[in-house]
Amino acid sequence: MNNFVFYSPTEFVFGKDAEAQVGTMVRMYGGSKVMIVYGGGSIVRSGLLLRIQQSLQESSLSYCMLSGIQPNPTDAKVYEGIELCRKEKADMILAVGGGSVIDTAKAIAAGVLYDGDFWDFYIGKAVVEKALKVGVVLTIPAAGSEGSGNSVITKASTLQKLSLRTLKSLRPVFSIMNPELTYTLPPFQTACGIADMMAHVMERYFTNTKDVEIADRICEGILLAIIKEAEVVMKEPDNYGARANLMWCGTIAHNGTCGTGCEEDWASHFLEHEISAIYNVTHGAGLSVIFPAWMTWMTEHHIEKIVQYAIRVWGVSEDGTEKEIAMEGILRLKSFLSSIGLPVTFKELGIEHPDIDRLVDNLHNNKGELVGNYVKLTRKDSKEIYELAL
Amino acid sequence: MNNFVFYSPTEFVFGKDAEAQVGTMVRMYGGSKVMIVYGGGSIVRSGLLLRIQQSLQESSLSYCMLSGIQPNPTDAKVYEGIELCRKEKADMILAVGGGSVIDTAKAIAAGVLYDGDFWDFYIGKAVVEKALKVGVVLTIPAAGSEGSGNSVITKASTLQKLSLRTLKSLRPVFSIMNPELTYTLPPFQTACGIADMMAHVMERYFTNTKDVEIADRICEGILLAIIKEAEVVMKEPDNYGARANLMWCGTIAHNGTCGTGCEEDWASHFLEHEISAIYNVTHGAGLSVIFPAWMTWMTEHHIEKIVQYAIRVWGVSEDGTEKEIAMEGILRLKSFLSSIGLPVTFKELGIEHPDIDRLVDNLHNNKGELVGNYVKLTRKDSKEIYELAL
Repeated sequence: MNNFVFYSPTEFVFGKDAEAQVGTMVRMYGGSKVMIVYGGGSIVRSGLLLRIQQSLQESSLSYCMLSGIQPNPTDAKVYEGIELCRKEKADMILAVGGGSVIDTAKAIAAGVLYDGDFWDFYIGKAVVEKALKVGVVLTIPAAGSEGSGNSVITKASTLQKLSLRTLKSLRPVFSIMNPELTYTLPPFQTACGIADMMAHVMERYFTNTKDVEIADRICEGILLAIIKEAEVVMKEPDNYGARANLMWCGTIAHNGTCGTGCEEDWASHFLEHEISAIYNVTHGAGLSVIFPAWMTWMTEHHIEKIVQYAIRVWGVSEDGTEKEIAMEGILRLKSFLSSIGLPVTFKELGIEHPDIDRLVDNLHNNKGELVGNYVKLTRKDSKEIYELAL
Repeated sequence: MNNFVFYSPTEFVFGKDAEAQVGTMVRMYGGSKVMIVYGGGSIVRSGLLLRIQQSLQESSLSYCMLSGIQPNPTDAKVYEGIELCRKEKADMILAVGGGSVIDTAKAIAAGVLYDGDFWDFYIGKAVVEKALKVGVVLTIPAAGSEGSGNSVITKASTLQKLSLRTLKSLRPVFSIMNPELTYTLPPFQTACGIADMMAHVMERYFTNTKDVEIADRICEGILLAIIKEAEVVMKEPDNYGARANLMWCGTIAHNGTCGTGCEEDWASHFLEHEISAIYNVTHGAGLSVIFPAWMTWMTEHHIEKIVQYAIRVWGVSEDGTEKEIAMEGILRLKSFLSSIGLPVTFKELGIEHPDIDRLVDNLHNNKGELVGNYVKLTRKDSKEIYELAL
């Protein structure tokens, strides 16, 4: 087991009607004027935005608003938010939505207190030393951004989709999580969220680090819970128990609970980021295509943990060769993903003829000549994995 | 799943040589003069105390010291610590040890800033509104106090052993955890720690709350990891990987990671507290006697979750009656506890003729007529459980 720091200071307020506490939470964490950041009209139509505004007003808090955050969020909205936030003198950012909204809120929170271009943080030219506090009302369980210090933004002009990772400065101070708010998520978006949270667990699970039994068991436990509850929620979108289990799984998949003491991989995420940056597909759908391809490639190059995964997560019998066990596990993963309506090939993703050379070039130009850790992928390896996903 | 708040803001610095960071951490969290609280001579003999003092000095921090904390810590040391802390004007408490030391440090931290008797917090007469910050260097993985907001203190004059539970005010700001520091723990103390952390998981696992699949899977995963690593560590006390896995299991068993959204039980802990308060046995050893007895009683009164536990944690075959499955699981638990050198009966605990009537009276006088939640135990029920442990 490697040395590690576990730090997850976010206060998670989880359950029915939790959003009624948003005013209290903002005040508890020292906000006086918040900038509400959100996406489209669904939180308006559902009445959620109104309930949040009422809660803020009841706590005598003022607010301004930034709407229109899109999936795969771009730098343009961050610049707009920074300008608005400075003009309105907001002292806390309240993200109401899923990963795209939260990631944008974090970028704004860091950018407001920085003299240079916020993009400096994403290209490693500057480190976030101070940021406004961010609070969250989560509506889409998927990205795990409500419990992480990370943010992913795409620069529209270059289609660079880059991650900013912080231990402390960008963790939300609170995240309000009401599973009922996720009842109305369309099935495809629910499924994409499931693929995303599973991927967050698996990026940490596939490690070379030895003596990580507790990390393995936690990862496997979360995956088993996701798999069970996913089947329920696809049939019964308003099953509170299933929605609640999935929502919490999405958070602990990415707040540091998984992978303690492990060197993490993240190759599949990086392989996918290039797909969603160019083709603007949903991140979770892209992961559903890439992760099985990555695993399949691994059966020829570093099969060990894939075998354990097949046995412990998918219940594959230990009788058979390592290759047979691993391939059966991957088959069950793909069947599961298909069963909840996700694509498992580029073709099913709607990309009949992906420009694989461009994907490979972008990946390695952005992330370096070697990508990932479980096996450090070269350009040749990445190309083979993209091809396995055709 | 019930509504819940997950809040674990403690910064856990985990790994080899982690204690060298203690000065940096104290300074980061705003301490300028710390009171070091510890137990006996082992941290002096091992050189740990000296290394901590050096680290504090390198960060230009001053300190005073309170030593002599005993297992099942009593109020006397708390009063002594409060007085010393006020006299020395220490602004942070640094606990170096296991649960007894940390619990004493927390009691002092709350008492220093309170005008009345600190015991008021433990009998529910007052609520902790402010406390000095507590930092931890953990040397015994067991109690989980390094990641919890709780403290258990015994009032010597009445032998009342009472818990104080806080969500926020008594959580350590940081906990430094170097598994190497646990190499020299005697086998019995290691085993008692294992029983304690397993009990912390199981108190949350045995719940009536429905739709808690993620909580179940997390609990089961931690138990599986503990069981595996316990066998290793009893044979190889200086196996870093096994010590590291156990140490982290002890923390996440009790920092809120387990049992999210569950009504917890805690009857076994309460049944045990009366034993260790009267007979001054090690808490973990007492739990090792009581928990199997509690489970055995449950096979006649509420078997459901005991069956799931037997199957998922102990790998008991699903063939057979519920009673057979449950009893086989309990048998395997007892075999495991015996195999690591723990008692599973009062007699093995060294209490040939326990005063069961006194235990029952103390329990219900301290905790109320009904104890626990999985089944709410009456005086008659508690007596039967104590008798099953003979």
